[in-house]
Amino acid sequence: MLFDDKFLCNFINSEDYNFIMPAAHDAFNMLESRNGPGCDMLGWLDCFNLHTKKILEIAEYIRANSQIVIIIGIGGSFLGAKAAIDFLGLDNFNNNNKIYFLGNTMDPEPLLNVLNKSQDKDVFLLVISKSGSTLEIMSAFQVLLNFMIGKYKQNFNKKMVIITNKTRGFLREFVNIYNCESFEIPENIGGRYSILTPAALLPIAIAGGNITKILDGAASVITEFKNFDFKNNICLKYAIIRNILYKKNKLIEILVSYNQRLLYFLLWWQQLFAESEGKNNKGIFPTYLLFSRDLHSMGQFIQEGSKICFETVICVENLKTDVKIDDSFYQKYINFTKNKSFNYINSQILDATIRAHTQGGTPCGLIKLKDFSEKELGKVVFFFEKSCAISAYILGVNPFNQPGVEEYKKNIHI
Amino acid sequence: MLFDDKFLCNFINSEDYNFIMPAAHDAFNMLESRNGPGCDMLGWLDCFNLHTKKILEIAEYIRANSQIVIIIGIGGSFLGAKAAIDFLGLDNFNNNNKIYFLGNTMDPEPLLNVLNKSQDKDVFLLVISKSGSTLEIMSAFQVLLNFMIGKYKQNFNKKMVIITNKTRGFLREFVNIYNCESFEIPENIGGRYSILTPAALLPIAIAGGNITKILDGAASVITEFKNFDFKNNICLKYAIIRNILYKKNKLIEILVSYNQRLLYFLLWWQQLFAESEGKNNKGIFPTYLLFSRDLHSMGQFIQEGSKICFETVICVENLKTDVKIDDSFYQKYINFTKNKSFNYINSQILDATIRAHTQGGTPCGLIKLKDFSEKELGKVVFFFEKSCAISAYILGVNPFNQPGVEEYKKNIHI
Repeated sequence: MLFDDKFLCNFINSEDYNFIMPAAHDAFNMLESRNGPGCDMLGWLDCFNLHTKKILEIAEYIRANSQIVIIIGIGGSFLGAKAAIDFLGLDNFNNNNKIYFLGNTMDPEPLLNVLNKSQDKDVFLLVISKSGSTLEIMSAFQVLLNFMIGKYKQNFNKKMVIITNKTRGFLREFVNIYNCESFEIPENIGGRYSILTPAALLPIAIAGGNITKILDGAASVITEFKNFDFKNNICLKYAIIRNILYKKNKLIEILVSYNQRLLYFLLWWQQLFAESEGKNNKGIFPTYLLFSRDLHSMGQFIQEGSKICFETVICVENLKTDVKIDDSFYQKYINFTKNKSFNYINSQILDATIRAHTQGGTPCGLIKLKDFSEKELGKVVFFFEKSCAISAYILGVNPFNQPGVEEYKKNIHI
Repeated sequence: MLFDDKFLCNFINSEDYNFIMPAAHDAFNMLESRNGPGCDMLGWLDCFNLHTKKILEIAEYIRANSQIVIIIGIGGSFLGAKAAIDFLGLDNFNNNNKIYFLGNTMDPEPLLNVLNKSQDKDVFLLVISKSGSTLEIMSAFQVLLNFMIGKYKQNFNKKMVIITNKTRGFLREFVNIYNCESFEIPENIGGRYSILTPAALLPIAIAGGNITKILDGAASVITEFKNFDFKNNICLKYAIIRNILYKKNKLIEILVSYNQRLLYFLLWWQQLFAESEGKNNKGIFPTYLLFSRDLHSMGQFIQEGSKICFETVICVENLKTDVKIDDSFYQKYINFTKNKSFNYINSQILDATIRAHTQGGTPCGLIKLKDFSEKELGKVVFFFEKSCAISAYILGVNPFNQPGVEEYKKNIHI
């Protein structure tokens, strides 16, 4: 992967870099020496050492014995797995078997749809919650538990895996009483940083992803991302650039993709940055757009509206599937697309749009991924995780807590 | 429908209203007397008079003769139809027949998926583009045209309907040469204002929606929305409130839903406001969130991050489907959800969240819809359309042009 800053040079000069450098080095130091705020939550820095044997065995068993896998999770226990499975193009496994995600809404309709589809199928249930007590998770779990007991009687506990913390909460208690298979989310890894733990790796492995290659991909950039010289460390560079732009009143960062399968990766990124930076009345507002779809809605705003945004565009260079426009029938009316392919036109739109938005006053950074492979996924995940931690330290907040998430829960009396 | 401003009163006082009133009345006047900027684009104000006979007949024919309907459209020629079909819960028609939307991306994967599913099915094609020349539309059209010719030979033209302007562009030319069935998008209605024209009404009717009731719903609020007194006109009131908040540096409006089927309605709203207001370096940045999902990602930011947002929450009061949590098995561990229903818990979360966010400094307006009916859809669509026009006039911009959308296209050389 690469980070290309050529469309940022009209917005950021060397003085900007000089000005922010001391704070950036302090932040980087704090993370590297593991002594900053939230330093008890740095388990994700060592995820590469995870033992995958049990994950792979259980994933293989589930793949072989299930037509439908239902995953109950929300936030970090949902978005990482969904982002990775879509990134890898694995939404069907083993001849059209399906993975459904529930527990991320109290809207009953998705639950009813999945129950309906599951009646005559072999179903396996994954329940993922670090705390083991989240309201949305426990609500969906109770309904699905009754469904599984109705279907599998006393063997229901052989048809589920629970992923939660080691000692606390309803789910751990349930595991102990009913002797379910379980995995642990380490205490020192927050939900939004848990994509390289069993919370996402088991779902990815069930879907057919090679989790060893994902971990290898992340491990392959460790050395580069430890470099103190930001010119040779894109992870540090991205953190610096977004803080410079924030100081220039670019209050919104838009993560942009031109490929549909990145949609949930954009949502995963949004959670990572929103929860890490949005505190102490500070933080860049993270949002995302899918182009061309959203070019025809938000394009006008970015081009000519309030100049409070910057864009970070993710492009993927080598794509396996394509469609060529064979316009033999229609060419007398249209020939501007003659013999062109969809991916080629998509890349031309990307290029044209970055130039138009930059000219219109919106800075655009460009992240280039080589392909939709496991290795590239591991790299870009670790890139954003580490960059986010550095960026939050530069901003002056603890990247690893999320006190505000609990606020609404205090008001719930049901 | 109702607009409830009780969670806004700590953020807006009577002086704020007094200050903005002259500009608001000027804006309202300009729209009512149809003499403001873009006043040649006010056809949507008279949509209720549309003759629906031909739409209903052709929709009936398509429903009876198709297993798959592919709709090619982008922006206003996509989001309105998709929003309405999802709002009404009509994503399957006639025993599991499907509507697929293409043309909103140059990513080839969705196109390949739909082509794959369409091989052995009766397929009908709708092509929607006001200009009749949009790059993404024409690219998808050429591929699907070849597919339809391969499948239906010389009868291909009986298997498609084209919706475009009356006289110009590739699509109108195609209609004239190949004698396809077609509908007209009036010149005086912009794409984002076209939901009550054939551009969305034909897709909705194919899906099984009662379009007469949608138009009746919109017509039923005309009188109320003409009232000069904002206390008795929620359409004027919403426009006023968002401009007051904008002046108080609330630069981002988040439209929030707790119901999954509103997702594309949020996107439709985003286009409406982004293209109408995002110009002359002005405009509130419109974005959307789906709770609970996004409470566990953006909740932290809204609660404790930069205080630059306000929320408009859409809640729906009477829901037909629900799931009750029968926790007989599990109640010794959890009883806080005992015998509660999903919709009940969802409404409690909504209430708790509005109070938490308001306490945290984020103003929240609340739009209450009675149900997911056609009538309520017609009302809320017209509410946002008219409110958006008033709001843009208060802001001092032309609500009906979108010069910036074309910028990126000028840079495309393929």
